[in-house]
Amino acid sequence: MESSHGLLMLGLFAMICSIAFASDPSPLQDFCVAQDFFFSGLHIAGNTSNAVGSRVTAVNVAEIPGLNTLGISLARVDYAPWGINPPHTHPRATEILTVLEGTLEVGFVTSNPENRLIKKVVYKGDVFVFPIGLVHFQRNIGYGNAVAIAALSSQNPGVITVANAVFGSNPDISPDILAKAFQVDKNVVLGVQSKF
Amino acid sequence: MESSHGLLMLGLFAMICSIAFASDPSPLQDFCVAQDFFFSGLHIAGNTSNAVGSRVTAVNVAEIPGLNTLGISLARVDYAPWGINPPHTHPRATEILTVLEGTLEVGFVTSNPENRLIKKVVYKGDVFVFPIGLVHFQRNIGYGNAVAIAALSSQNPGVITVANAVFGSNPDISPDILAKAFQVDKNVVLGVQSKF
Amino acid sequence: MESSHGLLMLGLFAMICSIAFASDPSPLQDFCVAQDFFFSGLHIAGNTSNAVGSRVTAVNVAEIPGLNTLGISLARVDYAPWGINPPHTHPRATEILTVLEGTLEVGFVTSNPENRLIKKVVYKGDVFVFPIGLVHFQRNIGYGNAVAIAALSSQNPGVITVANAVFGSNPDISPDILAKAFQVDKNVVLGVQSKF
Amino acid sequence: MESSHGLLMLGLFAMICSIAFASDPSPLQDFCVAQDFFFSGLHIAGNTSNAVGSRVTAVNVAEIPGLNTLGISLARVDYAPWGINPPHTHPRATEILTVLEGTLEVGFVTSNPENRLIKKVVYKGDVFVFPIGLVHFQRNIGYGNAVAIAALSSQNPGVITVANAVFGSNPDISPDILAKAFQVDKNVVLGVQSKF
Amino acid sequence: MESSHGLLMLGLFAMICSIAFASDPSPLQDFCVAQDFFFSGLHIAGNTSNAVGSRVTAVNVAEIPGLNTLGISLARVDYAPWGINPPHTHPRATEILTVLEGTLEVGFVTSNPENRLIKKVVYKGDVFVFPIGLVHFQRNIGYGNAVAIAALSSQNPGVITVANAVFGSNPDISPDILAKAFQVDKNVVLGVQSKF
Amino acid sequence: MESSHGLLMLGLFAMICSIAFASDPSPLQDFCVAQDFFFSGLHIAGNTSNAVGSRVTAVNVAEIPGLNTLGISLARVDYAPWGINPPHTHPRATEILTVLEGTLEVGFVTSNPENRLIKKVVYKGDVFVFPIGLVHFQRNIGYGNAVAIAALSSQNPGVITVANAVFGSNPDISPDILAKAFQVDKNVVLGVQSKF
Repeated sequence: MESSHGLLMLGLFAMICSIAFASDPSPLQDFCVAQDFFFSGLHIAGNTSNAVGSRVTAVNVAEIPGLNTLGISLARVDYAPWGINPPHTHPRATEILTVLEGTLEVGFVTSNPENRLIKKVVYKGDVFVFPIGLVHFQRNIGYGNAVAIAALSSQNPGVITVANAVFGSNPDISPDILAKAFQVDKNVVLGVQSKF
Repeated sequence: MESSHGLLMLGLFAMICSIAFASDPSPLQDFCVAQDFFFSGLHIAGNTSNAVGSRVTAVNVAEIPGLNTLGISLARVDYAPWGINPPHTHPRATEILTVLEGTLEVGFVTSNPENRLIKKVVYKGDVFVFPIGLVHFQRNIGYGNAVAIAALSSQNPGVITVANAVFGSNPDISPDILAKAFQVDKNVVLGVQSKF
Repeated sequence: MESSHGLLMLGLFAMICSIAFASDPSPLQDFCVAQDFFFSGLHIAGNTSNAVGSRVTAVNVAEIPGLNTLGISLARVDYAPWGINPPHTHPRATEILTVLEGTLEVGFVTSNPENRLIKKVVYKGDVFVFPIGLVHFQRNIGYGNAVAIAALSSQNPGVITVANAVFGSNPDISPDILAKAFQVDKNVVLGVQSKF
Repeated sequence: MESSHGLLMLGLFAMICSIAFASDPSPLQDFCVAQDFFFSGLHIAGNTSNAVGSRVTAVNVAEIPGLNTLGISLARVDYAPWGINPPHTHPRATEILTVLEGTLEVGFVTSNPENRLIKKVVYKGDVFVFPIGLVHFQRNIGYGNAVAIAALSSQNPGVITVANAVFGSNPDISPDILAKAFQVDKNVVLGVQSKF
Repeated sequence: MESSHGLLMLGLFAMICSIAFASDPSPLQDFCVAQDFFFSGLHIAGNTSNAVGSRVTAVNVAEIPGLNTLGISLARVDYAPWGINPPHTHPRATEILTVLEGTLEVGFVTSNPENRLIKKVVYKGDVFVFPIGLVHFQRNIGYGNAVAIAALSSQNPGVITVANAVFGSNPDISPDILAKAFQVDKNVVLGVQSKF
Repeated sequence: MESSHGLLMLGLFAMICSIAFASDPSPLQDFCVAQDFFFSGLHIAGNTSNAVGSRVTAVNVAEIPGLNTLGISLARVDYAPWGINPPHTHPRATEILTVLEGTLEVGFVTSNPENRLIKKVVYKGDVFVFPIGLVHFQRNIGYGNAVAIAALSSQNPGVITVANAVFGSNPDISPDILAKAFQVDKNVVLGVQSKF
């Protein structure tokens, strides 16, 4: 069937190349069953044993085909103590985050020329908004694990982790560019790049 | 200051008249502080002591001014045992619901001429999507309370509870119309109207 | 040819499953002829010999392929004396209705918490607007037949007839849910469901 | 009240300057009454005693304030025998036209480089679509008057009558430009300009 | 591969029929390489040896596949001395034009009923905006060649050259219609039509 | 006059706080004159005597009021030899860049998890696209100055220079967060922060 083939190919493309688009293909697939609007497992804590001490479990159109064209998706974020969800942007979505457990320091930075940091300590039951495309982050500043649920205003919001995009791209951005951009010695750049 | 006056008036309007619009006024207000992107209290269970045994706590642009124009909002839904979030629509949003606690029967009905009911029993950690404008509902079918968090693809999604809009409008829709629409005796209509 | 195959499949899908989407597939078909922008027969009165005494003749992207992506469609509505176009919503469109013949009582209900009924008696040449997603209806309150033409702000607006979606879905919504939602005895629900 | 003042000023602006915008101000006004969603008089034939033998009666956001942001509007078009609705565009809307009475030749021209004329003779009850921004026209080719109702996919679609915009602007476009554009002698241009 | 086949077919369609659509198909193709975001040659002067003395070199989604769905495109315009870019519209885009070399008279005409000509002489480094769908033009009023770069708010903006669409369509618009629209003798129309 | 007051306040707000919004206020101002659609000076080279060796001259709705709601803007970018336009994003726009003079290395990085760098050396007359929200940069790799003109798909695209937003926000993001995000010693973070 051509259409499912096309969607399959799109899926493969998404995995292989993952360039972000502002829109998604319209659904040619036959969404007739509850399964197409369903996802399971968001109660399961993500594994935070990694360098930043956090884990994002995304639930978007890749997980729920029925979300296609509907302009919304979700993610669960787990934070180990002092874990961070490092500075990142969503190129196609605003995020609204709800703290389910723990205490987080959250913030976003406005665009040029202000670069004003808007930040707040948020607790269980608090809700905070990160406007579309702005750099934002969260940090677990409590004693135990923290959990948040984030809703995003796109079925395919995308995530750009600043450190990974800038210092961990494949291939690398020229160290000379980054040295000038961050006003550091080129060896510092090479050191950071070696981590990603 | 004119702009805050305008927004104030808009707020009053929203309370007094509450006609649904597809778009909202653009922000003329000075959003400079974290408070404009913040809401507190979504961990608090809503009071479900009412006829349907559920409570929706909405967090949209009325609660978080910074959401204006950003196309997303939230709600917490509490369900007493056997409580229902009765059949309703959001005229301007798709909903994606996550079960935080309990077991729900959820469903939506497709539009004419099919009127197909797509339903599923969902458990803690399950996610379900209700496409924009479609009639949908949830029912707590577990032994204890249930809690869900719903994200909506508009900062002002609106809620139309079918029973209230149809049988509880102010003033009433003519009972003759409803008797014919629902193919029941006019006295049945009058009986239902008297409840709302 | 793949694309027409895809559109065909989409058409079949629309007939078989008819779940509403917020957007439609983009046109891959070769629209080169006037026929693709044309529909005939809107002067013919619809057959109103049915339970509600009205008939809607829809002219949307299913009838006029060239409407795809263009955000507009039409319908003709015929009303027998005292016929009603029962309470319904369009999940993806605002409607603007023009009375061609007869006298109608028209109305829509605003969303929660107001549920205010905005209604008016409209005559030949009168125009009335039903904002996107709101429950609305018309009733022929004149002595003869009435005719209206409705324009809708989507090429695929969808129609949700409240009574059919709530009491006539396939399969049925649980009578327990509807009994609680409408605050009636379960037998009343079963009675209404048996009509649809 | 600031907001109504603002809207008033906007209305004045619309009358005085009428530059077309892609969007409209959002509603700050208190739409609480049926009157805001209502217009009367579309059954009245327009006066076609003019050079082109047709008359357009527009029903858009200027006539129905409640249409604001809702993306739809209407017009009635009357045609004397052999009257034309001369070649024009709507800069912000697709049009779908229904013939109520009479016989029309209708057509639109595709964009460069094809400039293909898609045309058709349409009769009572026929519907024809003019895609957004394309040059289109209608001509009454029957023996009596003709009437059509047009729906447009914007609450403020705008109308650009080609002859008036090009040869009747205020002040005039330089005749040298038009002579070269239309490949005619400058005196021909001056002659046409003198008519508008 | 189905998707590239589909895009190919779309491309063929675009060449053969070129009817304007408000939206484009979503990308099913595998955009993984820089080439998909690249175009070369905009420094090369276009050949202005033609009746109007100008040449537009378009760079839109047909030239850069990666522009699909991204809502922007470009064009270079070359003007011989006294050359004009004749009155035209973009049915789906606003244009912002920058003068790279030379001196231009630029203008646009507002919609009915004003038809106000907003015009200005612009020099190297000047920028001028032509709002979506409005008739606009440029004329080289300097002694040498002029060059401008235009950015457009759609990946597929379309161009409707008024003279070509109205007097040079294929087949011709009936001369009777144009004679009445432009208030000239039918022989004048036939004369103009023979030029296109 | 209320509306100009409002716009003035908005302008002040933009300068003082500069939080990014996805939409702009609708125009309440009286745009009747060519001046509202005009900007002068884009032929003047920007001063590149700064740490990165480049200068962006923006032409958006702040410079051209008539751009409001029209979804497009411009910028001129000047590059000294080896100057860079450092890694940045536009939270609300795709960019299409044309090289007017010189030779640039340009690139963008796709989103997680690929972080693929799509890069290319581009010469005079070359055009390159940076999709909405993605991190991108340019570097002058030629012997002389380079100049480019960038068009953006929003009248208010915003610019987030990664280094400034992350290491130069006001107040600073906690060094602990950045040390963990970039996997460097906190002293390295403090060193970088001291530069911004």
